[in-house]
Amino acid sequence: MSSQPSHSTLLIPGPIEFDDAVLQSMSHYSESHVGPAFVSTFSEALSMLRKLFQTTDPSSQPLVVSGSGTLGWDLVAANLAEPGDEVLVLHTGYFADSFADCFETYGSKVTQLKAPIGSRPQLPEIEKALKEKKYKLLTVTHVDTSTGVLSELKALSELVHRVSPETLIIVDGVCSVGSEEIDFDGWKLDGVLTASQKAIGCPAGLSISMYSGRAIETFKARKTPPGSYFASFKNWLPSKLMFLSEQGIKGNKLTIEIVMQNYEAKKPSYFATPSPQLIHALHTALTQILSRPLSERFAAHREISQKIKKAVTDLGLKQLASNPADQANGMTAIYLPEGVKAPELLPNLFKKGVIFAGGLHKEIAPKYIRVGHMGVSVMDPKRGDIDRAIKSLEAGLSEAGYTKA
Amino acid sequence: MSSQPSHSTLLIPGPIEFDDAVLQSMSHYSESHVGPAFVSTFSEALSMLRKLFQTTDPSSQPLVVSGSGTLGWDLVAANLAEPGDEVLVLHTGYFADSFADCFETYGSKVTQLKAPIGSRPQLPEIEKALKEKKYKLLTVTHVDTSTGVLSELKALSELVHRVSPETLIIVDGVCSVGSEEIDFDGWKLDGVLTASQKAIGCPAGLSISMYSGRAIETFKARKTPPGSYFASFKNWLPSKLMFLSEQGIKGNKLTIEIVMQNYEAKKPSYFATPSPQLIHALHTALTQILSRPLSERFAAHREISQKIKKAVTDLGLKQLASNPADQANGMTAIYLPEGVKAPELLPNLFKKGVIFAGGLHKEIAPKYIRVGHMGVSVMDPKRGDIDRAIKSLEAGLSEAGYTKA
Repeated sequence: MSSQPSHSTLLIPGPIEFDDAVLQSMSHYSESHVGPAFVSTFSEALSMLRKLFQTTDPSSQPLVVSGSGTLGWDLVAANLAEPGDEVLVLHTGYFADSFADCFETYGSKVTQLKAPIGSRPQLPEIEKALKEKKYKLLTVTHVDTSTGVLSELKALSELVHRVSPETLIIVDGVCSVGSEEIDFDGWKLDGVLTASQKAIGCPAGLSISMYSGRAIETFKARKTPPGSYFASFKNWLPSKLMFLSEQGIKGNKLTIEIVMQNYEAKKPSYFATPSPQLIHALHTALTQILSRPLSERFAAHREISQKIKKAVTDLGLKQLASNPADQANGMTAIYLPEGVKAPELLPNLFKKGVIFAGGLHKEIAPKYIRVGHMGVSVMDPKRGDIDRAIKSLEAGLSEAGYTKA
Repeated sequence: MSSQPSHSTLLIPGPIEFDDAVLQSMSHYSESHVGPAFVSTFSEALSMLRKLFQTTDPSSQPLVVSGSGTLGWDLVAANLAEPGDEVLVLHTGYFADSFADCFETYGSKVTQLKAPIGSRPQLPEIEKALKEKKYKLLTVTHVDTSTGVLSELKALSELVHRVSPETLIIVDGVCSVGSEEIDFDGWKLDGVLTASQKAIGCPAGLSISMYSGRAIETFKARKTPPGSYFASFKNWLPSKLMFLSEQGIKGNKLTIEIVMQNYEAKKPSYFATPSPQLIHALHTALTQILSRPLSERFAAHREISQKIKKAVTDLGLKQLASNPADQANGMTAIYLPEGVKAPELLPNLFKKGVIFAGGLHKEIAPKYIRVGHMGVSVMDPKRGDIDRAIKSLEAGLSEAGYTKA
């Protein structure tokens, strides 16, 4: 029931389908990036992010920067770790390798704890690793886009706080924020990074993250300067900023507030030019998300996920994440049956009106496909996206000669 | 003559007013970032950038990454300079200080050649500096957004090639690409970085740059790894990439092609997710720019600039750039008359329907204002933006009690 031109429904694990109102916000007429109208919109978007991440602690700090989800890794690695710091990366697939590369670029020493494909590192081995070495940070991929594996943050955080309370807990939430619950305060997380184009439902182009007061203090206590310029928290410090607006000059201001705090307080700031159109779209997407209780949203994602996973099982297919407790609620990674090839199946599904993704985990990429079920495709059943996905998959497999054994 | 809701015309030195068709492209329905439709759009945008930069040398490399103009500094400083390298930064205002900071973040040794406010370093002093020390790179701000000072690239490049031919010539073209001519090949430039939201006329969110074959070779000859992850050319090398599309897996590919080359060749690639909506808008903006000869575009910007500068002079006001040869064609920085304050004038102009910017050069910020005249406001006279700007300025100054002496 979309006013968009007819197009195959995008059901990859991001970018996802976007609501019409969000896309219309992308066309907002041009505004000054330091004008009161835009600053007010940005302020409200930052406040809404606090609600989405379920944080009421005033020391928590949301950050929205032009860039892709990848930039979130730089924000963490260049600001919260210093050269020589030890970092423990929990590995569930493709993205842990890249996050580890990012840490190494900025001089951290990385230890990866790897799980078999489709699984995740278990608490006892994580406890053992934390006892063997002092880690400055631990990172976990909440939902691994390459495997569809979900990590359990609450128990993990309890473990870290018990065994190694000084270790910062950093969550790669690129494929989870908006489709999986994140209780930032309750679970005592220190950083969650994500992107706009997945379950938040805003077109790509924004790196979005939340940091705890403890993380900000860790940055302030650095002995070495941050290793990046564009991604440096330092450059969001007002000592370097000109405060200006079309209402006139506000003068230089030397405080410990950072640019995001100024935007949230509706004070214009300048380091790098934000994208007013993308921020408008983010504002619309967050307004839609928060118009219903978050618990309803996460329940809907669980329900639709179960529906898809049941259809997959009924077809006689297996998921990469074999343990139900490890299965993400916003995507499903499915092993292809013997004889069915992705380069033939996926174009056929495209013709049927749905776009799925190929495999991404390099060791087994040709052997599986991935389906995203997030955002409006889940929350707006009138679109019929999920039923179309299931029917298309059934028909596509049948046309590929597959019948359940 | 816009179908956009009524709003005050944005005439700051970026973001600028955007054409309706460009804004409508921002609302494009969601597409896979590795699907053939989007890859084709991205490819065409990259090819059009070559035309805008006037480069036909196949070794030139366009790059489009999600981020702001600031990210362009990181791309240069993290990839083309190595720790300890000497860099000469020509200083015409605010932005040279920041570019210098960026180089120092990545370990370069920076020498700044500063000119008085409203002027630019002169060729003889640049020649002297180049003879005193061996510089890996020289940077110049083509149009300094903080002062409206235009640098002359052709003569500068001839000087550098004569005196210090190994020195790479890097142009900060954030406020010039699209409003000032850039003959990338003819002037033998090595890097020009810009952003989408100024004279190119596409909403903010894209870092756009062009590198010479010599710059790419310099990167490949590095002895140390690049200092940034997100901004690293290394991460656009396919050895790290998964090649995938909804048509299926293309397999890992190990070649020396980089991601942008793949996109341009319509081969899907993945490092960080691009923003399909912004790339569509860029495609529309570039198509509009290239629908007329570039020479016409630059002549129109010169003509409108002269019109505004004449009105400023007729009002008895002075520009920061006192020498006509140093005056940008896409913006004008104007000293306020005694007794007229920006925090009172600018809101009054806003009410009259035009948005100008305050001063940005920290030493004299309260003493001047800035007007942007780029893109559709120049190329589409039916909008009436320029006449409205001049009339509003005249009326605003009069209402502030100013009369020409």
